[in-house]
Amino acid sequence: MALRLTSERRLDDDLLERTFTLGEIPGFLWTPASASAPMPLILLGHPPLGLRTMHPRLAARARRAAADGFATAAIELPGSGDRPRRAALEQARADLRRAMKAGEPVTDEIIDALVLPLVGKAVPEWQAALDALLSLPGIDGPVGYSGGVISLGIRLAVAEPRIVAAGLFAGSFVPRAMFEEARRVTIPLHVLLQWDDEGNDRQAALDLFDAFGSQEKSLHAHMGGHTGVPRCAGDTVARFFARHLK
Amino acid sequence: MALRLTSERRLDDDLLERTFTLGEIPGFLWTPASASAPMPLILLGHPPLGLRTMHPRLAARARRAAADGFATAAIELPGSGDRPRRAALEQARADLRRAMKAGEPVTDEIIDALVLPLVGKAVPEWQAALDALLSLPGIDGPVGYSGGVISLGIRLAVAEPRIVAAGLFAGSFVPRAMFEEARRVTIPLHVLLQWDDEGNDRQAALDLFDAFGSQEKSLHAHMGGHTGVPRCAGDTVARFFARHLK
Repeated sequence: MALRLTSERRLDDDLLERTFTLGEIPGFLWTPASASAPMPLILLGHPPLGLRTMHPRLAARARRAAADGFATAAIELPGSGDRPRRAALEQARADLRRAMKAGEPVTDEIIDALVLPLVGKAVPEWQAALDALLSLPGIDGPVGYSGGVISLGIRLAVAEPRIVAAGLFAGSFVPRAMFEEARRVTIPLHVLLQWDDEGNDRQAALDLFDAFGSQEKSLHAHMGGHTGVPRCAGDTVARFFARHLK
Repeated sequence: MALRLTSERRLDDDLLERTFTLGEIPGFLWTPASASAPMPLILLGHPPLGLRTMHPRLAARARRAAADGFATAAIELPGSGDRPRRAALEQARADLRRAMKAGEPVTDEIIDALVLPLVGKAVPEWQAALDALLSLPGIDGPVGYSGGVISLGIRLAVAEPRIVAAGLFAGSFVPRAMFEEARRVTIPLHVLLQWDDEGNDRQAALDLFDAFGSQEKSLHAHMGGHTGVPRCAGDTVARFFARHLK
């Protein structure tokens, strides 16, 4: 798929933001405004709420990464933002909302329907984005993956040899099938967990951390709910990437 | 109890080491060699292996803390090093060794006998050390506690209002009674856990973390056994104390 740069603006003195399309998929590329040498790239994972909704949080993460000398990029997930809705995904989201509202357990069937098709479609798209981004001047390897959807991070970490380190946010439902894939992850991992994440099963997150095959992995649990990740946690992730991508 | 400084030497260009006795209890005080203003103090907790055995590891932690502008101190635990052996403690240690060697479960009785009398005797000693150290020129509050024995850290955090933050190493057995005390801890906590600690129950460590009453607490789990804490984990602890003691 061809990457087409569609706009460019300075977000502030230190950050350049470019929008692009990759085929029909919109995306963002952020780089330090004063970049000279080619730099490593961090792919910013994000929940399927649409890039427009996520923009303030993504830009804040991009700004921090740019200060450390990293380019960052994100593309729209299948069925999110301005991309065509996907009937099966919409159904799974409706099932999830219904179960949570009723205080019922979120079944494996709902989680599988919510995550597996999304990840299956997203992985080749993120790999295509990687092909295109790494061919731009000023963008170089190595590559990191940072954030959620954690199942997307897991499959990319297994499938994509250019990704050499991942900072994963254990903040989303994980299909049982992904535990087997987690055992095949071997790159260094830095896993964030919000201890009281309202939409996430803590024990499942701990089991997933245990399952990862990586020799170098660490888990960082902080108090609070899904969106309450403290600033110091971001600092530690930043140092993790500085150690592994530089 | 009176603190008597007994020796003083430069460990290197940046670190001054003084030995002292507090009554009959030997101790170490480390300060940056080039200190000017009074500085915060971090009490260095350590396993009951004797200060002499622990000296290289304690001095390394002291050097790091001194670079951040902290004084550090440690005193010998009851029944360790050159202090008189305590029959009940020796018995508990023999029972522990026997159980572990036989691959038998370490019972609550063994853990209680191992930890509770030790902590009961050590806490007033560490408080007396705090009284004496804070009256020295160049040593000031606030005070932090860093390391193991975690039960000693828990009780000090509850009993001693001058301790305002604790970096705890979840690497030792914790009596069930300490879980109730953990609920009464309210100061900011930074808890380290070695995921494959050979002498420690991971689930108990996670349960203990959950029990702490502190609003601000975080858990940092790294791969490896008891002595395998990676360097980056020490960096994160250092930043925790810089945030809370400065």
